[in-house]
Amino acid sequence: MTDIAILGRGPAGLSCAITSRLRGLNAVVIAPKHNTSWLARADRVDNYPGLKETSGADLLKAFEEQAAGMGVETLYGMVRQILPMDGGFMLLVENDVVEAKTIVFTTGASKPKLYPGEEALIGAGVSYCATCDGQFYRNKKIAVLSENDQGAEEAEFLLSIAAELTYYPLKKHEIPQNLSVVNERPVSLARTDGGIVLETDTAKRTYDGVFIFRMGLPLAMLLDGLQTQDGVIFVDRSMRTNIPGVFAAGDCTGKPHQVAKAVGEGNVAAISAAEYIQKG
Amino acid sequence: MTDIAILGRGPAGLSCAITSRLRGLNAVVIAPKHNTSWLARADRVDNYPGLKETSGADLLKAFEEQAAGMGVETLYGMVRQILPMDGGFMLLVENDVVEAKTIVFTTGASKPKLYPGEEALIGAGVSYCATCDGQFYRNKKIAVLSENDQGAEEAEFLLSIAAELTYYPLKKHEIPQNLSVVNERPVSLARTDGGIVLETDTAKRTYDGVFIFRMGLPLAMLLDGLQTQDGVIFVDRSMRTNIPGVFAAGDCTGKPHQVAKAVGEGNVAAISAAEYIQKG
Repeated sequence: MTDIAILGRGPAGLSCAITSRLRGLNAVVIAPKHNTSWLARADRVDNYPGLKETSGADLLKAFEEQAAGMGVETLYGMVRQILPMDGGFMLLVENDVVEAKTIVFTTGASKPKLYPGEEALIGAGVSYCATCDGQFYRNKKIAVLSENDQGAEEAEFLLSIAAELTYYPLKKHEIPQNLSVVNERPVSLARTDGGIVLETDTAKRTYDGVFIFRMGLPLAMLLDGLQTQDGVIFVDRSMRTNIPGVFAAGDCTGKPHQVAKAVGEGNVAAISAAEYIQKG
Repeated sequence: MTDIAILGRGPAGLSCAITSRLRGLNAVVIAPKHNTSWLARADRVDNYPGLKETSGADLLKAFEEQAAGMGVETLYGMVRQILPMDGGFMLLVENDVVEAKTIVFTTGASKPKLYPGEEALIGAGVSYCATCDGQFYRNKKIAVLSENDQGAEEAEFLLSIAAELTYYPLKKHEIPQNLSVVNERPVSLARTDGGIVLETDTAKRTYDGVFIFRMGLPLAMLLDGLQTQDGVIFVDRSMRTNIPGVFAAGDCTGKPHQVAKAVGEGNVAAISAAEYIQKG
């Protein structure tokens, strides 16, 4: 079992990983292959102490190299769900499973824009994980709303389970031939006695289940019971969330969205996680 | 009036100064000439992201140069007292007076070790500022307990006011000829009807007032009403103390004592101070 699983590869996540290693802990950073930290796109950062007038990309590269040099492991992929287990947590990461004693969210500020009605249906007809929830829709009618290839792959798996599957591409991407595609823009979701009604810009259709695949997941979906407000994770000064063993750092804990703040919080989260593990 | 007066020149103070400048604010860093940050004495820091395997002195130098390059002013001296005034605060800094809209404490972790009985007598016979309190002891009997040259200078000023002055050197330093020196080790302070009893390793003597000059001051003494616990300044996640316009960052806000944490908190304190000033 890994000591610390860090979700995100921006300044908070890498700072957390670096200090975890210094404290002698195993740390795995889980993030998409393409670094989605906004820092990668920052033209110039002038107020990160020690590295003046640096591009965001160079800053991130320095952090990544330092982390790699200290033995931080990276697992490329999106975390689909986190489940509590004996002595820690189980993370479903696309086709991998990671077990970790502690979790640190450093998932950044981006909050996925949900469809009207979506939030109320989470776990009640709307799902973000085919592996987790596919079984509930065996021989049922499924809609898949997907931004990317990843969603198309999940749709193919669901197709093998479902009675009927309709694929709504939300952004341009490669779509397998065997999927039945509807090129309409979804606008809202609602529950009726007959199932989940998906309204698009031109029609209304009813499904038993709707799977949505975006780059970001609503945080509360990843880990049941995680306290958030307006998409920001609640933490105390030690970067502890409301769930023991779960920490958060960086933009996902709120403003200001700054490299130095993210780096500092990542550092504190690592030390708090180390103390949590030590106490057993 | 300066926008932000920053007390301390370690990583938290310099990070705060750098971000203050980036936000277009005037920032003055007030600190002793000799940098007393523990970072200056750290042999090697491995977990400050971006600058790997750096000596503390080099890290501090990089921070200082960056701050200076951004137009951060430095005022060398010890802050003796902070008084609220219209639209901000007045800081007594040895022989200078600084007016600032906001204050950021980045005074580090060192907590002066007080004598038994000292805390209860603060403002009631025990003082840390000749300029502030000297007037109350005109033609009275004064003891000066001093670690350094600075205390000797203050004692000379008090000598011109007092009826009688005894100088107790606490550490080796240059002592002016005109001071009456007692080379005994103070052990405790207490109030009796006759005045303040100073007990040393060999005698007990009674004074009207006792002035103590150390490198560090009890924080609550610097600014009346500042909420502290065990010498740690109470702050929220925005680095606000209990006093509007007063912020704190770095080791003085508690553990972990880490460069990255201090830098991050300094950054957040600067942004919170900027918002406070903007709201007017």
